[in-house]
Amino acid sequence: MKSKLTILKLGGSVITRKDKPLTPNIQVIKRLAEEISRADFHPLIIIHGGGSYGHPVAKKYRIADGFKDGSQIFGFSETHEAMMRLNSLLIRNFLEYGLPAFSISPSSFIMTRKGRIGTLNEEILKTALEFGLIPVLYGDAVLDAEQGFAILSGDQIAAVLAIKLDAERIIMGIDVNGVCDSDPKRNPSARLIEEISLKDFERIMGQIGGSQSLDVTGGMLGKILELKAAVEYGVEALIINALLPDNVYRALKGEDVVGTRIRR
Amino acid sequence: MKSKLTILKLGGSVITRKDKPLTPNIQVIKRLAEEISRADFHPLIIIHGGGSYGHPVAKKYRIADGFKDGSQIFGFSETHEAMMRLNSLLIRNFLEYGLPAFSISPSSFIMTRKGRIGTLNEEILKTALEFGLIPVLYGDAVLDAEQGFAILSGDQIAAVLAIKLDAERIIMGIDVNGVCDSDPKRNPSARLIEEISLKDFERIMGQIGGSQSLDVTGGMLGKILELKAAVEYGVEALIINALLPDNVYRALKGEDVVGTRIRR
Repeated sequence: MKSKLTILKLGGSVITRKDKPLTPNIQVIKRLAEEISRADFHPLIIIHGGGSYGHPVAKKYRIADGFKDGSQIFGFSETHEAMMRLNSLLIRNFLEYGLPAFSISPSSFIMTRKGRIGTLNEEILKTALEFGLIPVLYGDAVLDAEQGFAILSGDQIAAVLAIKLDAERIIMGIDVNGVCDSDPKRNPSARLIEEISLKDFERIMGQIGGSQSLDVTGGMLGKILELKAAVEYGVEALIINALLPDNVYRALKGEDVVGTRIRR
Repeated sequence: MKSKLTILKLGGSVITRKDKPLTPNIQVIKRLAEEISRADFHPLIIIHGGGSYGHPVAKKYRIADGFKDGSQIFGFSETHEAMMRLNSLLIRNFLEYGLPAFSISPSSFIMTRKGRIGTLNEEILKTALEFGLIPVLYGDAVLDAEQGFAILSGDQIAAVLAIKLDAERIIMGIDVNGVCDSDPKRNPSARLIEEISLKDFERIMGQIGGSQSLDVTGGMLGKILELKAAVEYGVEALIINALLPDNVYRALKGEDVVGTRIRR
């Protein structure tokens, strides 16, 4: 590979309407497809969240709690099916904009243990990248060796793959400008933190505001906790607002963009 | 597991209209979902073919020939996307009829070598079966360690999984009554062979008629060649007409059904 890998995470609240079940934000999806295509960056892996596809059904059946009784089995199937549907919609739009997007289903090759990824065979991802494909993964309902099943967040996948595949950076596209000193959705005077070290993070941990809609995989705090190991490993992590036009394009190109940079 | 595994393969010409691109045979899909649900058989794995979803685009870009030039990359992505779409449609119908169907994407966990499955990690499939889920796989465009990419037929997946998971039987639902002494679609007086041993098969190999529409993965001859290793291993193989109502139900229940039984 000529340059080092970038992993782009697109939050569920960016690509779907979190308030309406199973409703994509088509306009945003098409704009992002165009931006990613225009940036023409390789090698690239895209990972997306569940938003109003995966989360409502996962929550209804308490999939994240693991297997408790047989009634959850359908919920498990349905959660994955909803995510496949969203993924398929993204892939079609990516292909339309000339991106060689290749869907890879997390639950088909990853099992967790107590919700955490243990071993992971990265051979298919590596081969796909070598061919110039853009693997597109997603937060998913996965089988779990300990608790039956689990919700595997796109954030965890991004961080684990970044280490496994020796990525240069993770770009997290979310629905706010980055990490703020209080929840920017509740507090209009919340201030953006443009750069934060892991040490600073631990110091101000109590103050960070999170995404408040329906995110069973944790809000901003959870995101940074997932990113921590990757940042410690040496991966650059940048959190940006993917709802603002050209932010994803600029981030991919390495241009200046408003957001939060997390460093060691 | 209480009883031994059955693998049900549903041919692409059964669940899609092979003459119209990207057109499912919804009526047949719903009927099959109802029959499988009524049979209430566990453990069960379902594998489906591509029909008018996977085959036209795979053929257009010569995916089965392996990687020749960059123009095929899109065809590879598109083939998989088309298969995902068909799979998603099946899963939704299976869930609707009360089947805990769980999609597993072959290209996300299987790489081939010269078109053949080498190693395959069956842990996720085993765990899914233990939970009472019905894994649903499909013929797919997969990455290939030798030739870049390949078309992996549902028939090959069925035979390999049958051995790996020590299945009791493979039921192949196709669009004719079974193996005939000539092509039943061309020759109305073609006679059904109700039972055939692998030895007999080798003797009369030249006479077998194949599915003639658009099957890049090989017709009847290819099917039997794929089944051979599984049958030699001790798996029962039954080829039936899944277009005839109640055939799949009866086969799952172990009742008499018109078709071809392949034995050692």
